[in-house]
Amino acid sequence: MDKSGKIAILFGDTRFMHLADRLKTDFRVEVYGVLGLENTKPTPFECVKNCEFLILPLPACKPLSTMINCAENVDLKDIFSVLDKNVTVLSGKANENLNILARQHGINLIDYYTNEFEILNAVPSAEGAIKIALERTDFTLCGSSCLILGFGRIGKVLAKMLSGIGALVTVAARSPEALATAKSLGFDTQNIYDMSSCLNKADIIFNTVPSLILDQKNLLNVKKDALIIDLASKPGGCDFESAKSLKLNFIHALGLPGIIAPKTSSEIIINCICSFIEERRINGT
Amino acid sequence: MDKSGKIAILFGDTRFMHLADRLKTDFRVEVYGVLGLENTKPTPFECVKNCEFLILPLPACKPLSTMINCAENVDLKDIFSVLDKNVTVLSGKANENLNILARQHGINLIDYYTNEFEILNAVPSAEGAIKIALERTDFTLCGSSCLILGFGRIGKVLAKMLSGIGALVTVAARSPEALATAKSLGFDTQNIYDMSSCLNKADIIFNTVPSLILDQKNLLNVKKDALIIDLASKPGGCDFESAKSLKLNFIHALGLPGIIAPKTSSEIIINCICSFIEERRINGT
Amino acid sequence: MDKSGKIAILFGDTRFMHLADRLKTDFRVEVYGVLGLENTKPTPFECVKNCEFLILPLPACKPLSTMINCAENVDLKDIFSVLDKNVTVLSGKANENLNILARQHGINLIDYYTNEFEILNAVPSAEGAIKIALERTDFTLCGSSCLILGFGRIGKVLAKMLSGIGALVTVAARSPEALATAKSLGFDTQNIYDMSSCLNKADIIFNTVPSLILDQKNLLNVKKDALIIDLASKPGGCDFESAKSLKLNFIHALGLPGIIAPKTSSEIIINCICSFIEERRINGT
Amino acid sequence: MDKSGKIAILFGDTRFMHLADRLKTDFRVEVYGVLGLENTKPTPFECVKNCEFLILPLPACKPLSTMINCAENVDLKDIFSVLDKNVTVLSGKANENLNILARQHGINLIDYYTNEFEILNAVPSAEGAIKIALERTDFTLCGSSCLILGFGRIGKVLAKMLSGIGALVTVAARSPEALATAKSLGFDTQNIYDMSSCLNKADIIFNTVPSLILDQKNLLNVKKDALIIDLASKPGGCDFESAKSLKLNFIHALGLPGIIAPKTSSEIIINCICSFIEERRINGT
Repeated sequence: MDKSGKIAILFGDTRFMHLADRLKTDFRVEVYGVLGLENTKPTPFECVKNCEFLILPLPACKPLSTMINCAENVDLKDIFSVLDKNVTVLSGKANENLNILARQHGINLIDYYTNEFEILNAVPSAEGAIKIALERTDFTLCGSSCLILGFGRIGKVLAKMLSGIGALVTVAARSPEALATAKSLGFDTQNIYDMSSCLNKADIIFNTVPSLILDQKNLLNVKKDALIIDLASKPGGCDFESAKSLKLNFIHALGLPGIIAPKTSSEIIINCICSFIEERRINGT
Repeated sequence: MDKSGKIAILFGDTRFMHLADRLKTDFRVEVYGVLGLENTKPTPFECVKNCEFLILPLPACKPLSTMINCAENVDLKDIFSVLDKNVTVLSGKANENLNILARQHGINLIDYYTNEFEILNAVPSAEGAIKIALERTDFTLCGSSCLILGFGRIGKVLAKMLSGIGALVTVAARSPEALATAKSLGFDTQNIYDMSSCLNKADIIFNTVPSLILDQKNLLNVKKDALIIDLASKPGGCDFESAKSLKLNFIHALGLPGIIAPKTSSEIIINCICSFIEERRINGT
Repeated sequence: MDKSGKIAILFGDTRFMHLADRLKTDFRVEVYGVLGLENTKPTPFECVKNCEFLILPLPACKPLSTMINCAENVDLKDIFSVLDKNVTVLSGKANENLNILARQHGINLIDYYTNEFEILNAVPSAEGAIKIALERTDFTLCGSSCLILGFGRIGKVLAKMLSGIGALVTVAARSPEALATAKSLGFDTQNIYDMSSCLNKADIIFNTVPSLILDQKNLLNVKKDALIIDLASKPGGCDFESAKSLKLNFIHALGLPGIIAPKTSSEIIINCICSFIEERRINGT
Repeated sequence: MDKSGKIAILFGDTRFMHLADRLKTDFRVEVYGVLGLENTKPTPFECVKNCEFLILPLPACKPLSTMINCAENVDLKDIFSVLDKNVTVLSGKANENLNILARQHGINLIDYYTNEFEILNAVPSAEGAIKIALERTDFTLCGSSCLILGFGRIGKVLAKMLSGIGALVTVAARSPEALATAKSLGFDTQNIYDMSSCLNKADIIFNTVPSLILDQKNLLNVKKDALIIDLASKPGGCDFESAKSLKLNFIHALGLPGIIAPKTSSEIIINCICSFIEERRINGT
């Protein structure tokens, strides 16, 4: 591959350190504000100068400096102002503001937080959920009743793994498609709007639905000694105040991939970004 | 439930006989041209008269009479002309002509061949494919190398079942999402455009992709004693002429659900239609 | 390996043809009465002359000639009389008569039908049972209730495979160890002496216990539309007369490995015999 | 049940507290030295007086008092001297000394630490091993290469669970039967005396063999970043000194059932003891 191309990485956790390592074989790489690496240029502006690709952290919506706990206050607007027009900016979970900013500067912005990324991230999420279940129960998963709320990326992987361990898995979901898919894979299914009978049998409840599913009414049906593991991103899908006053055993588990399997998580991000760059180069040339 | 409502079933195979049985408990049911049942009215026109719902066979795109091998030549246009305006027509795999015809007559047409239907149908399809594999090989599936082309509804169920039997499953697919999903469920994966190395290891190749994947070039890489099971609907995804001249062992397996599990297939169609009618009645009242 | 050693194969089905092929690379092989091969010597006596190993068919308890439908009537007594004293005779499922005969002639008799052989044979047996279940039911295995009687070699493999297909598996066994093992692998369990409640829920009953488990009393609890697949060797574990008069759907399935997977079955027998010969040679030298 | 029978429980951890609870419904229960319960009699001698069954802790080989950290020094010899002749003593993992002592006093001693007990205990052991693997690796189990040494009770359950999570499982064992069983269940197998090629591919090595399998020679083949989890009881199956000097990542994990799933562990012990008592009573009357 043509090593003349330059890639700049601005800020990022240790996953981006591994990314820099990997990209070095094929590219000239400059980094600024990446955990575990020394800045290769004295300022972020010099770092991004003449670069072909600029990689921003995940997520990139907040002021860059606040995320990484660095002293400087770097504004993306200023960074974008000094970029060449033909540069490609790779950003994860770009919000609307970032998109608008990119358009205003005529910059080609690509989100590397794709479906593929999210699907692969479901594996460490599911394993993290299982680790929590193993830690916080006094019974074995094998033979226990596990209720999984939602059958999206994480629900699918989790159902398969728990079933492989020997748990009795019931999937509660909303859409007929999700319920049919769960059934086709051999799982017990339950309409999520009518799950009182399931709730009071479950030893562990895993929620993956990002809306208030485990409201007070539903929580009243949960067994006193059950464990609730909420995997939905903030604010989660459980009324934690009610769960607390009912003295239920619950945990809102976030950011599992980076905790349970930082190496695998790094590889997922690296593969997604590398395949974007490769594709771009092939199509661009 | 209000039993005053009338449901007409016009033509259909034995699945519709079972459907009539099931609906009788809650509705007044008239049938004409249904296999296994005597017509309850002397003509199809009298059968549909004053009905609330009219159920057409699966698929309903062809002239009704030809499908069911009956003597009469019934034209849907004539049937639609005598229907009330507020009737709901339930039809499976309705084609564009049928949709146009319904619009012309101001008729509410619903297709009961939904995603849910197709997902549930994947189970008998996959089991049918396994039966064929058991019949047409002289080795055990356990320990054999199975290559599944495509990771849609059938591919997913098939991969899970074969793996449960102990086969070494590789999933070849096109989209990064499909490949990521297969990987997240623990399967080996392969880009379908670069699968020569997989092809020559596979003992059994299951194709679920409805386009020419197994072309002459790919077939040249298939082991001489491998078995190819093409599950894609006509014309299939295999160049059968080339497969023949290469003396490969192949089969184009169609209509498996009705063959392998007619009872389960009936239940799928019944559940889909019944849930439509129930929903309609609840919302309509 | 020293190719001076001679191996004689006396009678046998096509599995022994494959065995001869495999042994040729390392040994001088003489065959007589093996299906698919021409005799290399005009008589069985010349065939076994000066051999280091003599391989007999499976099972070897009956008069050799009757098994293989050959015209001659060869008596093992006469064969044993002409063997050298240091020869090793490999025989499968040797009965007491054969053992006595060997001792009388001072011959070292080894039974290659070992535990290992039987365990590996459980795989084609289980796949054969699944094939029958797929053929003889009108519903899908996924979602069906399967009752497995016995948790020995075949029961274990079958339970795992059916569960992998998505069936709801219950294991009924006698010994607390068998029940505990089934439970530890995540299966529902039931004491085989108290299984009336299980019997009337089962869609398919697989028997692997070689004694009369499905007696008239138990058969009265079987669902009318259930399928009974008896895998136990003759006389089986089902009162077939009662099953018949109760109009139950049953089959006594025997000899599945050779039917469902002759190639795999050959490899099992070949591996067992070859490992015996290798071991013998290493220890003997 | 006849509630006139008296059961004495002498010493024991919290599992025996739960046992006492369960037995109370059917028996008069006296306890002395059981964690979490007040003594019901002032001395152990009064506790065992006129009892029908005496239950001793697990294991019961050491001086009773030392195990439970109580002040008194109670000698089993003295206890046995005051027992009636027809009493049944239930003890777990009774050693030879205890057996001799029982014979000398003409006491009927039964070991409740049966095969069944051990088999059921394999489930929490395997789940504990998985928890450790999740905690001590930076990659996901799904997609990782797991090598399991030994295919006994724990090996079987562990292989099944890891495979269900999506790991690539290889089973290394000694006996042809164990290897054949592993193969029949769909696992990759390897002779344990010839596993250098497996060792250097494994991301995680689980040892269940209670003899020095992972000696210095084998440890030299282990990947530098692999994790070794030794589940074999003391002294384990790994040369820990060599592992340390090779800077390998290892852990000797003992007593997992009580740690990972105390409730399930209690139930296992309770069920084993209760079934003994029930059986005894039925046969005794």
